[in-house]
Amino acid sequence: MTPGDHIPMKTLHLDLGQRAYPIYIGQGLLDRAELYRPHIAGRQVMVVTNETVAPLYLERVEEALGDYQVRRAILPDGERYKNLEIWNRIFDALLENHFNRRCTLVALGGGVIGDMAGFAAACYQRGVPFIQVPTTLLAQVDSSVGGKTGINHRLGKNMIGAFYQPRAVIADTVTLDTLDDRQFAAGIAEVIKYGLIRDPDFFAWLEEHIAALLARDPDAQAEAIERSCRNKAEVVAADEREAGQRALLNLGHTFGHAIETGMGYGHWLHGEAVAAGMCMAADLSRRLGWIDSAQQARVKALIERTGLPTWGPPELRRQRFLELISVDKKAQDAGLRLVLLRAIGEATVSGDFDPEALAATLDSRPI
Amino acid sequence: MTPGDHIPMKTLHLDLGQRAYPIYIGQGLLDRAELYRPHIAGRQVMVVTNETVAPLYLERVEEALGDYQVRRAILPDGERYKNLEIWNRIFDALLENHFNRRCTLVALGGGVIGDMAGFAAACYQRGVPFIQVPTTLLAQVDSSVGGKTGINHRLGKNMIGAFYQPRAVIADTVTLDTLDDRQFAAGIAEVIKYGLIRDPDFFAWLEEHIAALLARDPDAQAEAIERSCRNKAEVVAADEREAGQRALLNLGHTFGHAIETGMGYGHWLHGEAVAAGMCMAADLSRRLGWIDSAQQARVKALIERTGLPTWGPPELRRQRFLELISVDKKAQDAGLRLVLLRAIGEATVSGDFDPEALAATLDSRPI
Repeated sequence: MTPGDHIPMKTLHLDLGQRAYPIYIGQGLLDRAELYRPHIAGRQVMVVTNETVAPLYLERVEEALGDYQVRRAILPDGERYKNLEIWNRIFDALLENHFNRRCTLVALGGGVIGDMAGFAAACYQRGVPFIQVPTTLLAQVDSSVGGKTGINHRLGKNMIGAFYQPRAVIADTVTLDTLDDRQFAAGIAEVIKYGLIRDPDFFAWLEEHIAALLARDPDAQAEAIERSCRNKAEVVAADEREAGQRALLNLGHTFGHAIETGMGYGHWLHGEAVAAGMCMAADLSRRLGWIDSAQQARVKALIERTGLPTWGPPELRRQRFLELISVDKKAQDAGLRLVLLRAIGEATVSGDFDPEALAATLDSRPI
Repeated sequence: MTPGDHIPMKTLHLDLGQRAYPIYIGQGLLDRAELYRPHIAGRQVMVVTNETVAPLYLERVEEALGDYQVRRAILPDGERYKNLEIWNRIFDALLENHFNRRCTLVALGGGVIGDMAGFAAACYQRGVPFIQVPTTLLAQVDSSVGGKTGINHRLGKNMIGAFYQPRAVIADTVTLDTLDDRQFAAGIAEVIKYGLIRDPDFFAWLEEHIAALLARDPDAQAEAIERSCRNKAEVVAADEREAGQRALLNLGHTFGHAIETGMGYGHWLHGEAVAAGMCMAADLSRRLGWIDSAQQARVKALIERTGLPTWGPPELRRQRFLELISVDKKAQDAGLRLVLLRAIGEATVSGDFDPEALAATLDSRPI
């Protein structure tokens, strides 16, 4: 299949007024210079990528941008490198190459690269443009869209960062072919999340097409990515800085972050922790009487079919979970607030739940 | 003299729509809790200060904010500590104290503290409120107003930062009594700058009152600070992100940054370098025929009366100056642009000047 053969490029728009930008989704987009060109300011382009992605795609991107002064910053691969010290290497590269404030950054990689390069773009000379070129499913359906950027601190995940929107997102679905099944499934967790929080038809579509999606069927893949990005774009457009409904995107994330932090970064993939967290949120929602057992079972069944975990690790017990949750940034002065389900396709943020129901969820194992 | 005795508090407003904020100027404001209270979100307050300022004022601020959960981050004093490593100590303090995203930072100190604390506020959990409490003249008339925050990189000054506005600026003029004459004069450089770039009446007022100002006359001091902040607020309100006229505030700064970098941070004070840079900009403007010798002489005479340098150091010769200028962030793709004078009280940004005139300025010594 050649680019644009039977799956045409789709273009979504994230409507943020002056900060609006297009999201291009399709096959073979990575080296299409005309997608980059309108979003590049000046003559200088810094491609930020990692040691895993560089051998696969860096040269193609550099060649496509051959008209520009292109330089590269290659970082080590992995969540544990998403820190201040490695982040500073991007500035080393920019300054050693005499990049001025009319340069553009290109983030070529997964969520970690997108977060670090985006945050560097937000801060270099107080802000330069950047383009997201996500190469993992997780990054294509979630982290590359919406402008959340940042790095970890030893005491907390994503504690240092900025809301900073890219000029464009170029999601080349061919790059997903190089993902292993575990990484691919981790991305599916966020796809399922959109169905759960606000799109019951999409959830039903996923129940029907999950096998095709896991088999990497290009049509199923394109559909899943487009509908995920569309949902994300609508939520972000309505609430860019997470004052309200954007918090719904954190379904499963409070439990999930606790799992990631409690187990040490890198042991559980983010999507795996979120999958388990969504099952736990569904369990708590059922205990509160907000959804019924049949709905909870649908949530668990779909996640189970992806091979993702449906519960946190047994070694994290209630007390430790509560400690980890209380340092999570979603915990406000007003007390713990969680994203819970009112139905499949309808999530809500609530601080008004019975703490004993939460304790019961944390003490239990999946039904 | 007791607070508010014969110099009442003045309140200016920086009009930035949703990001608008007040600038309070007066004597004895540092511990007036009612000035802070409306601008503090949540219950948690982190006061960021340095080892020099802490013994002078920290306890008074902490006592005034006794109703809140107040914690402190005390950094080493000096421009050479304005780096990523020291900046991270603010996040250590925030996270060790379990500060959430509804906390507020207070920057108590000079320009370095304001820049670092403001940038930390911009990035902590993707943005929390902060209040500027500037304790140097330079910070009161310039760096605390307008939202430029950031840190240095070994390869360039202020290369990593954000535009991030405080919720309020509380300028207590009593704190200026503890400044030594050299630091005070360095602040006067930025005061003179406002007269030069856009306020000829203020420049004339300074010519008349410079002796009183240097003698720390409270009335003269209050007037100079208020008119400086008013000028700065008007420029920033018209051009928050430096797309146009805000660049005029960089009069003397391209030459000045070259001097600071060329001599090593901390040898020349920022205001000293700016003073020399303004004299050099005036010299170049005269060579271009934009101002006459009498105007240039007025610029030099006023700066000379403050005891500030009126030219760069002799060891920085033309070639080195040009190298240093070309890595300055004001140098764009389009070539070097400088802030120059069309008259006393009227500056302009121009890339359209005879390079030989620039060479002649760099080769010369002051008239």
